[in-house]
Amino acid sequence: MSKVILSINAGSSSVKVSVFRGSSKDAEPSQLAEASVAGLTAPPSTLTYKRGDEKIKDQEIKDVNTQEDAFKYILEHLMNDDGLPELKNKEDIEFACHRVVHGGDFDKPTRIDRETYHHIEELSDLAPLHNAGALTIVKAVHEQLPKATNIAFFDSAFHSTIPEHIRTYPIDQERAKHNKLRKYGFHGLSYAFITRSVAESLNKPIDSLNIIALHLGSGASACSIVNGKSFDTTMGLTPLAGLPGATRSGSVDPSLIFHFTHTAGKPSRSSTKDLHITEAEEILNKKSGWNAIAGTTDFGVITSKAEKGDKNCQLAFDLFVDKILNFVGGYYVKMGGKLDALVFAGGIGEKGSQLRARVVEHLNCLGIELDEEKNKKPADKEVVDISKSGSKHKVLICQTDEQTEMARQCCQNADDFRKQA
Amino acid sequence: MSKVILSINAGSSSVKVSVFRGSSKDAEPSQLAEASVAGLTAPPSTLTYKRGDEKIKDQEIKDVNTQEDAFKYILEHLMNDDGLPELKNKEDIEFACHRVVHGGDFDKPTRIDRETYHHIEELSDLAPLHNAGALTIVKAVHEQLPKATNIAFFDSAFHSTIPEHIRTYPIDQERAKHNKLRKYGFHGLSYAFITRSVAESLNKPIDSLNIIALHLGSGASACSIVNGKSFDTTMGLTPLAGLPGATRSGSVDPSLIFHFTHTAGKPSRSSTKDLHITEAEEILNKKSGWNAIAGTTDFGVITSKAEKGDKNCQLAFDLFVDKILNFVGGYYVKMGGKLDALVFAGGIGEKGSQLRARVVEHLNCLGIELDEEKNKKPADKEVVDISKSGSKHKVLICQTDEQTEMARQCCQNADDFRKQA
Repeated sequence: MSKVILSINAGSSSVKVSVFRGSSKDAEPSQLAEASVAGLTAPPSTLTYKRGDEKIKDQEIKDVNTQEDAFKYILEHLMNDDGLPELKNKEDIEFACHRVVHGGDFDKPTRIDRETYHHIEELSDLAPLHNAGALTIVKAVHEQLPKATNIAFFDSAFHSTIPEHIRTYPIDQERAKHNKLRKYGFHGLSYAFITRSVAESLNKPIDSLNIIALHLGSGASACSIVNGKSFDTTMGLTPLAGLPGATRSGSVDPSLIFHFTHTAGKPSRSSTKDLHITEAEEILNKKSGWNAIAGTTDFGVITSKAEKGDKNCQLAFDLFVDKILNFVGGYYVKMGGKLDALVFAGGIGEKGSQLRARVVEHLNCLGIELDEEKNKKPADKEVVDISKSGSKHKVLICQTDEQTEMARQCCQNADDFRKQA
Repeated sequence: MSKVILSINAGSSSVKVSVFRGSSKDAEPSQLAEASVAGLTAPPSTLTYKRGDEKIKDQEIKDVNTQEDAFKYILEHLMNDDGLPELKNKEDIEFACHRVVHGGDFDKPTRIDRETYHHIEELSDLAPLHNAGALTIVKAVHEQLPKATNIAFFDSAFHSTIPEHIRTYPIDQERAKHNKLRKYGFHGLSYAFITRSVAESLNKPIDSLNIIALHLGSGASACSIVNGKSFDTTMGLTPLAGLPGATRSGSVDPSLIFHFTHTAGKPSRSSTKDLHITEAEEILNKKSGWNAIAGTTDFGVITSKAEKGDKNCQLAFDLFVDKILNFVGGYYVKMGGKLDALVFAGGIGEKGSQLRARVVEHLNCLGIELDEEKNKKPADKEVVDISKSGSKHKVLICQTDEQTEMARQCCQNADDFRKQA
């Protein structure tokens, strides 16, 4: 297989496409280039592009207003790049990988045919704020690349191993089954990447690896990974549960929203004929989180302002640390203390040395200790050990990469996907 | 002070009155008798009475259908009991103590005057399912005992010491402040009792006591008590958050209810002109919990059926253990592992040896270990140590008693209450 794989990640305001050269089943796919268009909902849109040393950053582009436009623009850009001989025609692309947030009962990547597409459409009802974008881009790619095979990668799939007593909500069980109400969990591509990457780095077989992984970004979650499999995670039926995020409340008293607004159950202004989003979901997903406390979605800004004494930023920082500790402590005892490593990942996990220091400070009682210098200036590689020498459990930073994870799983399963055609 | 104190606890279907002889400020009040009327919502009502060796159990009584009836009936019964010479006339009663679930910003017991009453009425909007009963009984007692002083004891007051970053919800802060939306916490009378009682038993000053207390009953919560003060607790704005209960879901994805029913925000049938209860709150508080999984509110039945292989009961049991562990682990690291004791209390905490065994099994990695025999047959006293010899942290059972706690706090503050008159 020498054809090209695209890993596509479409948000409401951006489209990101990473280009990989297909590999054999067991080799790592190698990334050739990476392009993204941002600002779709706040024009002018901009292009960022990277191929080897070739870099374009935030170049303004015209007449690109939708996800479809963005994908088309990126595709042209890639095919016109003389430094990218692997991708000269649309036919050079064999697979288009799509990140889909909510996969319901899907427990592995799946070729998108009419039936799968319809199934994902139905799932949008469970996660209207999260799945809608993926469907739009799948359509656009299908129109642009009629010969490519579209594969859906579900952020929930990695968590299909969570045991029944952890994924079940104590609510009416008939209704729960009928409406498919259970803990699903998300950030699964990232956790799959972290699991493989950390196992390799520790030189352990994946199926004996026990870690607590923290994917901390503008969406944040934690995952307890036991014997290489997801055992528990903080997000739930939707990405709202668990840790707070940039604009997301995380878990709050389930009756809170009814005391926040008397119209919690009414459709929000983001609702459409097909997508039902309540005001409650809009408020808790989009108008909460640390932005609601500190006035910025940028946790880096929060951290540095907190250090300078800004009370609201201190509150947001302390609150985030507290919620992380709640889960790390719980996951530690549930794996009987048999922990190989605590792993920080995601934008904040990778960059937030102060956050890491504060979290781990509280974990010294478990034998989890940081090396201050390594924490402040971690080496720039996929997995970095920042533990204090002699720490009972390791502390690692992992540069997680969902795009690469899709390409890797695509290579591994390419033969199956071809057969499904 | 030699007059009588009544500790009154009114639920929707029952009224319980404990009679204490007033004591000096520092002595323990001694209980003289205890009477309760149950079955108000499922007639015929029944009387249970205990004074020394004198016992009446579930005696059917007529024409007692409301909380007012029940209180009047109990009062007559007490005054007519020849074995209770301390209480012959209404004037023998100086204080009537009332347990009020939601106390908002009240951080201590408070004499109920017109203003306090109105304030508690306003708080009912935050906890309509929980506070309404207390107000009815306060009125009834005031009519029956016009000369007694009514004191409100708030279940949230003990938690007024929870730090800002733990009690704050990451939601719009203006709205949060205006609508008083924060973590309050409940079961505070029980935690106050446990704190004092365990400190005494361990012979430690209260203000250096660190415990994790589990009040496990049909309503269940956990509390992290650091230096004798509440540092964190599982319940939140209302008692709904945190651990599941007999009919209560505990924390679930805050968007779950909107996928459970499209009418989540509509008023429930329990709503009245003055009390607004949404369908969501009714479902999550009254129609969920282990009853929704196992078909019974009785955790003892669940435990024994689970042992015999009943799948649903096993699921309910395992789920409850899992949720308890989440919080115990989190609280442990947040107190830096400086734990004096893990304390089980409440009906299930006191009786559930299997539950205690299963919870502590997972905590061995923290140095928390049970003595199997002591756990199976704990001595019948206020605080029992069931730790394994050599356990790094102690495991205790505490027979918590909210009625006694009210009487005790009443004696301690009697002079202040008299001055407020």
